[in-house]
Amino acid sequence: MSGMWGNNLKISIFGESHGNAIGVTIDGLPSGIDLDLCKIDKEMKRRAPGRNNLSTARKESDVPEILSGYFEGKTTGTPLCAVIRNVDTRSKDYGKLKDLMRPGHADYTGAIRYGGFNDYRGGGHFSGRITAPLVFAGAVCKQVLALKGIEIGAHINSIKNVKDKSFNYTSISKEDLQSFSTEELPLVDRSKEEEIRKTILDAKKKGDSVGGTIECAVVGIEPGIGNPFFDSVESILSHLLFSVPAVKGVEFGLGFGITEVYGSESNDDFYYEGDSVRTRSNNNGGILGGITSGMPIIFKVAIKPTPSISKQQDTVNIKEEKEDTLIIEGRHDPCIVQRAVPVVEAITAIGILDLIKERYGWQI
Amino acid sequence: MSGMWGNNLKISIFGESHGNAIGVTIDGLPSGIDLDLCKIDKEMKRRAPGRNNLSTARKESDVPEILSGYFEGKTTGTPLCAVIRNVDTRSKDYGKLKDLMRPGHADYTGAIRYGGFNDYRGGGHFSGRITAPLVFAGAVCKQVLALKGIEIGAHINSIKNVKDKSFNYTSISKEDLQSFSTEELPLVDRSKEEEIRKTILDAKKKGDSVGGTIECAVVGIEPGIGNPFFDSVESILSHLLFSVPAVKGVEFGLGFGITEVYGSESNDDFYYEGDSVRTRSNNNGGILGGITSGMPIIFKVAIKPTPSISKQQDTVNIKEEKEDTLIIEGRHDPCIVQRAVPVVEAITAIGILDLIKERYGWQI
Amino acid sequence: MSGMWGNNLKISIFGESHGNAIGVTIDGLPSGIDLDLCKIDKEMKRRAPGRNNLSTARKESDVPEILSGYFEGKTTGTPLCAVIRNVDTRSKDYGKLKDLMRPGHADYTGAIRYGGFNDYRGGGHFSGRITAPLVFAGAVCKQVLALKGIEIGAHINSIKNVKDKSFNYTSISKEDLQSFSTEELPLVDRSKEEEIRKTILDAKKKGDSVGGTIECAVVGIEPGIGNPFFDSVESILSHLLFSVPAVKGVEFGLGFGITEVYGSESNDDFYYEGDSVRTRSNNNGGILGGITSGMPIIFKVAIKPTPSISKQQDTVNIKEEKEDTLIIEGRHDPCIVQRAVPVVEAITAIGILDLIKERYGWQI
Amino acid sequence: MSGMWGNNLKISIFGESHGNAIGVTIDGLPSGIDLDLCKIDKEMKRRAPGRNNLSTARKESDVPEILSGYFEGKTTGTPLCAVIRNVDTRSKDYGKLKDLMRPGHADYTGAIRYGGFNDYRGGGHFSGRITAPLVFAGAVCKQVLALKGIEIGAHINSIKNVKDKSFNYTSISKEDLQSFSTEELPLVDRSKEEEIRKTILDAKKKGDSVGGTIECAVVGIEPGIGNPFFDSVESILSHLLFSVPAVKGVEFGLGFGITEVYGSESNDDFYYEGDSVRTRSNNNGGILGGITSGMPIIFKVAIKPTPSISKQQDTVNIKEEKEDTLIIEGRHDPCIVQRAVPVVEAITAIGILDLIKERYGWQI
Repeated sequence: MSGMWGNNLKISIFGESHGNAIGVTIDGLPSGIDLDLCKIDKEMKRRAPGRNNLSTARKESDVPEILSGYFEGKTTGTPLCAVIRNVDTRSKDYGKLKDLMRPGHADYTGAIRYGGFNDYRGGGHFSGRITAPLVFAGAVCKQVLALKGIEIGAHINSIKNVKDKSFNYTSISKEDLQSFSTEELPLVDRSKEEEIRKTILDAKKKGDSVGGTIECAVVGIEPGIGNPFFDSVESILSHLLFSVPAVKGVEFGLGFGITEVYGSESNDDFYYEGDSVRTRSNNNGGILGGITSGMPIIFKVAIKPTPSISKQQDTVNIKEEKEDTLIIEGRHDPCIVQRAVPVVEAITAIGILDLIKERYGWQI
Repeated sequence: MSGMWGNNLKISIFGESHGNAIGVTIDGLPSGIDLDLCKIDKEMKRRAPGRNNLSTARKESDVPEILSGYFEGKTTGTPLCAVIRNVDTRSKDYGKLKDLMRPGHADYTGAIRYGGFNDYRGGGHFSGRITAPLVFAGAVCKQVLALKGIEIGAHINSIKNVKDKSFNYTSISKEDLQSFSTEELPLVDRSKEEEIRKTILDAKKKGDSVGGTIECAVVGIEPGIGNPFFDSVESILSHLLFSVPAVKGVEFGLGFGITEVYGSESNDDFYYEGDSVRTRSNNNGGILGGITSGMPIIFKVAIKPTPSISKQQDTVNIKEEKEDTLIIEGRHDPCIVQRAVPVVEAITAIGILDLIKERYGWQI
Repeated sequence: MSGMWGNNLKISIFGESHGNAIGVTIDGLPSGIDLDLCKIDKEMKRRAPGRNNLSTARKESDVPEILSGYFEGKTTGTPLCAVIRNVDTRSKDYGKLKDLMRPGHADYTGAIRYGGFNDYRGGGHFSGRITAPLVFAGAVCKQVLALKGIEIGAHINSIKNVKDKSFNYTSISKEDLQSFSTEELPLVDRSKEEEIRKTILDAKKKGDSVGGTIECAVVGIEPGIGNPFFDSVESILSHLLFSVPAVKGVEFGLGFGITEVYGSESNDDFYYEGDSVRTRSNNNGGILGGITSGMPIIFKVAIKPTPSISKQQDTVNIKEEKEDTLIIEGRHDPCIVQRAVPVVEAITAIGILDLIKERYGWQI
Repeated sequence: MSGMWGNNLKISIFGESHGNAIGVTIDGLPSGIDLDLCKIDKEMKRRAPGRNNLSTARKESDVPEILSGYFEGKTTGTPLCAVIRNVDTRSKDYGKLKDLMRPGHADYTGAIRYGGFNDYRGGGHFSGRITAPLVFAGAVCKQVLALKGIEIGAHINSIKNVKDKSFNYTSISKEDLQSFSTEELPLVDRSKEEEIRKTILDAKKKGDSVGGTIECAVVGIEPGIGNPFFDSVESILSHLLFSVPAVKGVEFGLGFGITEVYGSESNDDFYYEGDSVRTRSNNNGGILGGITSGMPIIFKVAIKPTPSISKQQDTVNIKEEKEDTLIIEGRHDPCIVQRAVPVVEAITAIGILDLIKERYGWQI
C-alpha cells in the first residue's frame, strides 16, 4: 500500500495506464490560493509524450478535470481532486505480454506482489503515466510556494555519457530556473543540446534506450526548514523522488563526490552577506543536519534507461514456468529523462510544501 | 519534528549528546522473540568510538538498559524502550562554540530551527551519538529478520579515493555478510586495508578528515515485498538512510552508473533456477517497481568527511553577528565511515522489518 | 486537513455537495477480491435520499464510477478510486445563505477555518452527502470482511424519545444483522415502527427535525484484534464515527450505563463454550483493554436532529457583522437517523478492516 | 501496535506496571518553553494513588526524570523523554493470576493478542499505571496551551447514581477550572461530596467498586480549529480518550441527550457579543462540523467500575482450559474516577495542542 503520502500536505494517487482514469487528491492546501490553470497545463505538457521525435509517438490526453476543492477560481482548503481520463490506449499491444515478464519493468514483481491480479496492461499502476497526476499536484504546490518566494527548477545533467554543466551552487536565479521550463531539452550548457539529441536518436534507431541524470534546485527557501533525523529535508525529498519510476539514485550537494575530498574542502565556510549568513561553497546542497541553511537546495537524480526496448530479450513466462524470449512492440520512449524533469520538479514541490506547512501551519 | 518513524514498525528516538540519556522506543515488535543480548552488545561495540586509533579517543558508554517490552528473555510485543546514559562528556569543551558556527555541522541550521534553544553541547540532538539507539533498534530487528532467513551486511566501499571491490550482485552468502561484522575495517578486498588505514591516519595527522562510501546488501528476502510509489523499498530505505547524519547520497543497484549504459545493458534478464525466477545481472539492486525481485537488495551510501577538523576555519559568530575564525578542539574522528557501517545495517534492518510486517502483519 | 485516514487500510475522500463530483480512494485493499457491484449499489441506495416521505425529496445520483484498482471483476490491490457525479443540485437555493450562518451547521466554523473560501453551497465539503463515498468504501470493505466471517449490522435504537430494544449482547446472528439492510426503518422491535414513523412525520409537519441513536454490532470477529492505548478498537472506531457529520456521542457495551452499576455487575465473567472462551454478559461490548474478546462488538452512536429546519431562527450575518433571522428553504430531512444507519455500518467496516489488516498484513 | 500517536505533536509511551520503568517521549514541542516543574509534579500527584482512603493504599513513585529535550529550564524543541521508575511493586501478588483471567480486565485479550508473552504482572502494559506518563505529557502540553490562553479542567460528573451538576456550557471561567485541580473530589456542586464519598467507601467495604462520569471543558480556544471528517476535534479527542483504560463512552455537548430534543431546541442560535460571534446555548459542545466555534469545548467521559474487586468471580484458567473461580487479593481502588480526572485533562491537552499546532505550525 503506498498511494498516499504526507504529513502536513497529503497526496493520494490512483490509476492504471489503461484503466478508466488516473488522478490525485491533494489534502491540506491553503485556502484562497488563486490557481493559474494555464500554468498547470504548461507543466502537464512538459511531461506529456508525443511532442517530438525524442519521445514515444503515443498521445496522452493529459487534461485534468478538477472535481473538488476549487471554487470561484481559488482553492477552498478542502481536498482538491483532479482526474485525467485515459484515451488512445491500445490495450491489445499488451495482451501477449501478460505472462512474459519484461526485463527492467515491474511485471514480475507486480505479479508476485498482487498475486497476479494487478492490471498488467501498459504497466498498469506501475506505468510512468501515473506521474501525470504528480505533475498536476506539483504544479499546484509550485504556485503556493511562489507566494513564499520559493522557485524550483531542474535541468538535464547528463544523457548517457554526455554531461551538461552543473548549476553554480551558490548563486542560482529564479529566472534561470524558470527558463528551463520552456526548453525541449533543458540544459545549463546549451552547446550540448545537439550531442544529447543525437545520443537519444541513435539509441532510438538501434531499438535501444538511454538514461541520464537530472539536477534540481530549490531557491528562495529560508534557513531553518526541516528537521534532524526522520523528517530531514533529504529524507522527505528522497522518499518522494525514489517513488518516481526509474529513479535509482539521489544525492545532495556534492553527493557521492563529497566522499573524495577532505573535510577541510567539503565544509562550507560561513560568512555574512549584509545581515544574511551564507556559505562560500555549497557542497552540502543547502542542507545541514537535515535543515535548510538558506543556500539553494541542490540535488541530482539518476534515471535509468527506459526498460522498454525493441531488441529481443531473454525472459521467463511465469504461467508456463519456462524461459522464453521477448520482443516488445508498440510505441516507446528511447529516453524519458527529459520527460522526467517536470516530474522531479513536481515531486520536489510537494515535499517542500509539506515542510513549509510544518513550519507555518495552514496559513503558510 | 521527526524523532518518530514507521508504518508497521515504529521507532521513536530521543536524546542529546551531553544530556542525561539517549534512547529509543520500538513499537510493533512481534511478541515472543528471544533476544540475544550478547549479539546486541556486539553491534553496539561496532559503532562505539575509542576502540582504535582510527576513531576518536572519546569513550562512550553504549550500554543500553531495556526499560520495557521485554519479559523473561523475550519480547512482549508492547513498546520496547532502551536508554543509554551519557557519561564521559566534557561539556566545557563545547561552551565556547555556542555562538561560533562549525562549518559542515548543524550548529547554524539547528540554532535557526529551534530559535536558539537547542542543546548545543557536542552537537546536541544532531550528534552522531544519537545513532547508538538506532544501532540498538537495528540489532533487535536483525534478530527478528533472521527468523525469516533475512541477513543484512555492509562493507566500506571506499575511503576518499581508495576503492574496495563491490559485492557480486547476483550471489552473496549470508556468511560473507556476517564475517564483516567482526572486522575493524570491513572490506570485500582485504588487500586494500592498509591503504585505507593509511588514508585515515594521514588525514588525522593533518588535523583533517575523510569520508567514503558504504555498500550494503540484504539477502534472503523473498520477491514481492514493498510497493509502487510512496512506500517503495527505495523510498523507505532512503528515507531512513538520509536521516543518518553525514549521509549525502543513496543509490540502488548500479545507481548513478546505470545512467551511462544502454537499456539493453541495464535490463536484468530473467531466467529460472529450478523453480525460482532469478535475473542474470542485478543492476536494479533487487528492486523493480519499488518491490523486491528476490535478488539481493544492494545499495550504496555516501558519507561525507567528518565536519569536525582541527584546522582553522572561517565562520560567523551569530550572537555578535560578525565573521570570525574557529579552531575546533576536543577529540574527533578523522573518519566515521567505519563506525557508520553498523548504523547503515541497523537502519536498513528497521526499514526491512517495517516492510515485512506490512506483508505479514504482526505474526511475521 | 483531514480527508485521509488509516494505518493499514487508507481512505481518501473528496468533494463538495454542489461541486463536480464527490469520491473516495481506498488504498491497501487485498488483491483478487471479487466485488459484487449489485451489493454495493444496494448499500448506496440505503443511504440515498428521496426513497420515501421520511427523508428529503431531493434526488441524489449515487451511482459510483470505479476509476481504478478494479480489473476483470476483481480488486487489483492498487488504489481503488470511485467518483459520484453531482446532479440535481439547486445551487440558487443556497446563494442567499452565504453570509447568514445556519445554526447547528458548520457554516460559521467552516467560514473561519477556511478564511471564507470554502464552497458554501449546500454545506459544501461539510455536507452529509460526502458520506456517500464512505458508504461505497464501507460496502467494499464489508465484502472483504465477509471472507473472514465478519458481519456488521446496525439498527435504529431510538428516534427522539421512542426506544427500540437493544441487541442481545451475547448472541447476535449474522442473519439478523443482514435482515436490517432491507428495512426502511431497521428495528429490533418492529412493533415500534409506527410510532417512530409518526414521530418523524410530526416533526416534518412542524418544520422541525428529530435525531436518535443507532446501535451497531460486529459479529464473527476473533479475539485478540486491536491494541492497548492509541490504536484500541474503541479509539479506531470512535475516531471514524465522530468524523461522520451529526454524531455527538459514542459508547461501547453498556457505555454510560456501565457507570451506574457495581463492578461485580459490570465485569463479564468468563466461561468455556466447547473450546471457546466466552463471557456470560457482554457489558464491555466485546472489547477489553482495547482488544476484541471474541464476543460481538457493540456500540451506540448519538445522531443529533438535522440542523436544517423550516422554522425561523436567530443568527448572524458575518459579512455585515450584525444579527439577523433566517428561514431555511429547500428540501430537507426531518430525520437522518435511518439514512445514517448504513453510514455507521460502512465506517465501522473501514475501521475493522484496518485492524484486521494490522493482524494479517496484506493477505487477510 | 499503538504506543505512538499524533500528527503535529507526537507522543510515544512505553512501560509495564511491574517492569523497570514507564515513560513517554513527546516530539514536536515548541522550543524555548519555560517548564514549571512544580506544576507538573502537582498534576502527577493528582493521579497518584495512596493519597487517601478513596484509592488503593499502594504507593506509586510518580517522579519523572527528564532525559532529553530540556535544557537550561526550557524545552529545546527536540524529543522530550521522561521516565518513571517502578518501585513498591509486589509482583508475587500477581503470580497466581497468570492463568486465571480477571473479568473486566485485559488479561484474556492481552494473552491472545500477544501470544501469551505479555508481562502479566499487575496488568503489565494494560495497567492504569501507564497513564502516569500521559499525565506528565499532558502537564507539559497544558503549559504550552496556557501561553495561547487555553485552559483545560474537568470534574466528577457522577459516581454511580450520584450526579454532580454540569458546567454552565456557555460560561466557564478559567479560575473555576483551575480550582478543580486542588480538590480531592472535584465537583461543581460541592454539596454532593459527602454522598459521593460515602458511595465509594460503601463499595470498598463490600469489596466491590463503582464507576462514574467525568465532564471536561476547554476554554479560551479560538474558533476555526480542527477539521471536517477524519481530523475533527471530536475524532482527535475521542481517539485519545478511548485509549485511556476503563473509558467506555464519550459524548460532546448534550451528547446522547441531544437525540431527545427537536432540532429547533438543539440548534445553537448565533449572536454577537461585541465583535465576537457566540451562541446562546452550547448544545454542540463548542464544535460544529468538527471545528471549534469559540464556545467552550465540553464533553463527558464514562469510566467503568474498577474491574479489580475482592468478591469471588467465575472465570477460566486458560492454561488448564477449564472454568474456575477467582478472588483478587492485593490493594485495589474502589473507584478510579477521581484519579482519572487529571488523566482526562492530560489527554485532552495533548489532543488540543496537536490541533493548535496544525493551525500554527511549530511557532504556536
